[in-house]
Amino acid sequence: MRIDELPTPALVVDLDLLDANIARMGAAWPGTRLRPHAKAFKCTSLARRLADAGHTAFCTATLREIAGLAAAGLGDDLLLANEVVDADRLRAVIEGAPDARITIAVDSVETIDAAARAGVHEVLIDVNVGMPRCGCDPADAGRLADAARARGLVARGVMGYEGHLMTEPVDQGAKVESAMALLLDAHDQVGGDVISGGGTGSWSKNHWVTELQAGSFTLMDTHYEAAGVGFAKAMRLQLTVVSVNGTGGWATADGGLKALGMDHGNSSIDGADIWYHADEHTVFSMRDGAPLPAVGDRVTVWPAHVDPTVSQHEQLWVTRGDEVVDRWPVDLRNW
Amino acid sequence: MRIDELPTPALVVDLDLLDANIARMGAAWPGTRLRPHAKAFKCTSLARRLADAGHTAFCTATLREIAGLAAAGLGDDLLLANEVVDADRLRAVIEGAPDARITIAVDSVETIDAAARAGVHEVLIDVNVGMPRCGCDPADAGRLADAARARGLVARGVMGYEGHLMTEPVDQGAKVESAMALLLDAHDQVGGDVISGGGTGSWSKNHWVTELQAGSFTLMDTHYEAAGVGFAKAMRLQLTVVSVNGTGGWATADGGLKALGMDHGNSSIDGADIWYHADEHTVFSMRDGAPLPAVGDRVTVWPAHVDPTVSQHEQLWVTRGDEVVDRWPVDLRNW
Repeated sequence: MRIDELPTPALVVDLDLLDANIARMGAAWPGTRLRPHAKAFKCTSLARRLADAGHTAFCTATLREIAGLAAAGLGDDLLLANEVVDADRLRAVIEGAPDARITIAVDSVETIDAAARAGVHEVLIDVNVGMPRCGCDPADAGRLADAARARGLVARGVMGYEGHLMTEPVDQGAKVESAMALLLDAHDQVGGDVISGGGTGSWSKNHWVTELQAGSFTLMDTHYEAAGVGFAKAMRLQLTVVSVNGTGGWATADGGLKALGMDHGNSSIDGADIWYHADEHTVFSMRDGAPLPAVGDRVTVWPAHVDPTVSQHEQLWVTRGDEVVDRWPVDLRNW
Repeated sequence: MRIDELPTPALVVDLDLLDANIARMGAAWPGTRLRPHAKAFKCTSLARRLADAGHTAFCTATLREIAGLAAAGLGDDLLLANEVVDADRLRAVIEGAPDARITIAVDSVETIDAAARAGVHEVLIDVNVGMPRCGCDPADAGRLADAARARGLVARGVMGYEGHLMTEPVDQGAKVESAMALLLDAHDQVGGDVISGGGTGSWSKNHWVTELQAGSFTLMDTHYEAAGVGFAKAMRLQLTVVSVNGTGGWATADGGLKALGMDHGNSSIDGADIWYHADEHTVFSMRDGAPLPAVGDRVTVWPAHVDPTVSQHEQLWVTRGDEVVDRWPVDLRNW
């Protein structure tokens, strides 16, 4: 099958560009120095491709991602970089994956208690390094590590995500260094082998973590492209034009905001202005006097945010050139 | 099970409020005068509840919604209020639902051709009544109806969605009347029994259509609530607080923009300010000096846009009071 024979809306991944992105990141962060973040792609087939390139330790944001990666035989070293207080659910996932190594982030006595009750063996102390979200005060990290060890947990080290600096345009390197100084201070208190952090936006600037938590680099989006992070847009949304209004000067394609993450604003079409995304439509006009497409023409939409675009689809169509070579289920979505 | 025992994030529907919304709408638009729009709820269990209240004719935006409603035995009168050019896929859906009555919107010779080749029997001429999207020029409706009839299709009438006026604050009634004048003019050219249009935002103002295409009224959201449309918010996102930063004054709950439609901006928490939604987190502070919740507390989030919130979930948890009484699969999502 060729790309233009796919039923639309179709989320399409260019395999050569994906492989090039993995190779580029792997050159800087080889093997388990990279901890690919599965929340970006939610797909064990894509995770398998990363593992085949030597990146066998994965980062996740949900228990479903942990369970799915473990079930796919990708459980060498799974990190839930997120807090959990539901000990029953956590226990079910741990017990359902007896062969997996599962490490959980904790940032409070409550999350340490949940981990201990759930039968977790290993934790990272999650440290707030400047973005308001999860993570303890850096000064609290040692106390929490002691509390974890008192409950029989192994503290492998620390994690801290400088998410507020991913697309920072001014002095990004110095600001990342300051954020990581907080993490290193916490690590001095906690000990352990692991200092986990960073992301696609800081991959070339964060020289302090022992492992990089990056996922978006695999598929990319217009938001990270605009920030100049240096990877190729390997994922697109393929649509079909279903209506054209020549008098009004707009065309309408058959996929919209239910097929796209909208938190970073509208997506992009090369040479066109998107007027708006509706539930199942994208309405656009052409720039520079270019003619409108015809009903039945295909149109390529570049998503603004990879993570919540992927999570709205049940599959990724994998292509080489114009040929569809595989279909990868988005099998890690939902919770 | 009680609400506060649900694994989170959980999308929860209050059955009594849902029934009250259906009853209120049904009093104004009884039986098949209401054509509930399944795109809002994407759930055959909820559709069944509408059918049991006499609303047995459904509106849809995707072929998956058509196929799913037909498979669930809800195919009395299904309208795809959207354009299709993929005749093969349309034919497969038509042939897969031999007992269903399926009507397709058309707005061009290309969509008429696809419908004829797919074996469709009945169409509505889709008319543009002021919102840039699909729909023919009103002056073209008669010509398209003739073209459809020349291909052996039955033109049941017209449809036109005044979507740009759903939350219009100034002279909404007069503006809806002007939009519907375009639709009535098109209907004069086309004939047939059906004049289909309107939505939750114009349910009390549109006196010209023979059937109302409304879906959001069932579950509602903060966007329509702010517009004062008069239905109750029957759907909420239930989260658990997983991290609290007392010094910084914020709390973090375990669901975010992957569990919420974001095109209408942030959702709402009563008595709180939402700082932002991340992929799997909602960060918020309390207003008026109210204390922050504790780790493990539940929090209720009111979605800003019902349609793209539902479509990100695999189930609706149905409650009466604090009791969970059912689990309805969101079985009409994807395409």
